[in-house]
Amino acid sequence: MQLNNVYVRATGTTCGIDEFNGPLGQYFDRHYPDFHFGHKSYELAEMAMLQDAISHALKKGKLKKDDINVFLGGDLNNQVTASNYTAKDFQRPFMAMYGACATMGLVINTASMLIENHCIHNANCFVCSHNATAERQFRYPIEYGVQRKETMTTTATGAVSVILDNNPSAVRIEALTIGRVIDMNQSDPNDMGRAMAPAAFDTLVNHLKDLNRQGTDYDLILTGDLSTYGKSIMKELMNENSVTYNEYDDCGCLLYDSDQDVNQGGSGPSCSALVAFGYIYQKMLKHKYKRVLVITTGALLSPVMTNQKQSIPCIAHAFSLEVVE
Amino acid sequence: MQLNNVYVRATGTTCGIDEFNGPLGQYFDRHYPDFHFGHKSYELAEMAMLQDAISHALKKGKLKKDDINVFLGGDLNNQVTASNYTAKDFQRPFMAMYGACATMGLVINTASMLIENHCIHNANCFVCSHNATAERQFRYPIEYGVQRKETMTTTATGAVSVILDNNPSAVRIEALTIGRVIDMNQSDPNDMGRAMAPAAFDTLVNHLKDLNRQGTDYDLILTGDLSTYGKSIMKELMNENSVTYNEYDDCGCLLYDSDQDVNQGGSGPSCSALVAFGYIYQKMLKHKYKRVLVITTGALLSPVMTNQKQSIPCIAHAFSLEVVE
Repeated sequence: MQLNNVYVRATGTTCGIDEFNGPLGQYFDRHYPDFHFGHKSYELAEMAMLQDAISHALKKGKLKKDDINVFLGGDLNNQVTASNYTAKDFQRPFMAMYGACATMGLVINTASMLIENHCIHNANCFVCSHNATAERQFRYPIEYGVQRKETMTTTATGAVSVILDNNPSAVRIEALTIGRVIDMNQSDPNDMGRAMAPAAFDTLVNHLKDLNRQGTDYDLILTGDLSTYGKSIMKELMNENSVTYNEYDDCGCLLYDSDQDVNQGGSGPSCSALVAFGYIYQKMLKHKYKRVLVITTGALLSPVMTNQKQSIPCIAHAFSLEVVE
Repeated sequence: MQLNNVYVRATGTTCGIDEFNGPLGQYFDRHYPDFHFGHKSYELAEMAMLQDAISHALKKGKLKKDDINVFLGGDLNNQVTASNYTAKDFQRPFMAMYGACATMGLVINTASMLIENHCIHNANCFVCSHNATAERQFRYPIEYGVQRKETMTTTATGAVSVILDNNPSAVRIEALTIGRVIDMNQSDPNDMGRAMAPAAFDTLVNHLKDLNRQGTDYDLILTGDLSTYGKSIMKELMNENSVTYNEYDDCGCLLYDSDQDVNQGGSGPSCSALVAFGYIYQKMLKHKYKRVLVITTGALLSPVMTNQKQSIPCIAHAFSLEVVE
């Protein structure tokens, strides 16, 4: 779907210490020294990070909470806890969504469709994730010290808030594609990167077909959190199917240095959001990239279904960022 | 927000045995004899109910899955499991949302805004809930036989699918209001009805103000699952604030007979959806009601946050059904 009226007004990015110590640390608005930074629980720390990201975006966008038509957001916690509990401070219309690590794509796409068609004037889209809340949620509390499998990724700690509106600015959302659920019968919850690659490729193909474009129409194609393993599958899928591209990378592979202890890279909704709206967005403001396709990727696994030996359905939601001439 | 182009094309409703044995049982398309009905787990049974509801709606709407532009849905399971796992069978663009028991309002409202503004032509909106999956999720497995508190409600077992499109039909969605998260510092997870009533009232007031209407502009105002306790608080709030109305009721109080063992009534996303799109919708087709405001209500509680002594944020999303003359 092509868009003409949706612009990025401001972004707010907060992150944990590992994300700050990675190669992109300087691009984020704020970081915290540890997982608690003074809060009684990991969950409350995650909400504080989210509040800070939203405050940064509002301040940079010269807006108050009351100026925002609709907030849209989500996270990895059961019952979308961090988002729903933080939303009580807005006192504004709120839509909670769940796309696992593809949540930023889902909220950006929903908000963009509503703004494009003048249903609303602006929206605050946000996501957050916290390594310790996600590990406990999906696997084991980090205090157990469970040995991590080689194929695993590391859930990024951070929060991102993006204000979209219909007033022209330097960067716009110029197209989007809502993903389909793809399940290739992969059932290993410790290897989500390889499970998600076919969903990312499906969305890429549908996107290019819908807009009658080539992969080379983008300066950069960026997947969300496919891990080093998933990234190589994505490359293979593009090569085998003759999808050409100028540059391809994965946010999970960009967020950390190779000598950081993150196994196959970063993951979590904040991973792709930090890289796209922290790092890439600032590169675009400096005209380093003109058009970038961000394909956020989500493994929709549930520990309950994994225990029942079910496979892992995956989804990918894509949006295209473009520098306004 | 007022709408002019959104119509209910077809509905599909499936339910458990208690819901079938209640006063509205005859209005639902299909029911099942027990919680498993041949499936290995409660979760797989919940997904089968959802698939059946979607099939009923598609059949009645004379549509195939491929004719649907976007599916939107959600449920109570962690990681919105039933919806995400069922979505792999559609192979269509899918947006998963979480509004707890207010999820039907959230998906109906989102789809309506997209259809109203010609962003899409049609959508399949769905929710489901299963008593046994929800009890295990939020409280204890039903096999434990934990004594239920008097203030509790009973999560309804059922699934509802509603196809909306822009072709005129007998009943339309003529207005909607997206809710705000309201938290009145109630922290008892066994009394969600009373926690949610202020959110329902907040949405009602915002809806009437936005559209410059009175409560009496509706033949019926219907809240989602406030329980007998929450319903009386809702009535008090309307009376104290001089909000007049023709008829007011709560879906949770309508779904079961008073002699059924459901404590203070029904709850869960399928509760308000079954009553609104099973029972009320068919009454509207017979012109028993002309305009009905459905205020779906959701307690956004999380067991993790309840264990941390946090209060329960609540939300209510409203939409108005109207008979087309």
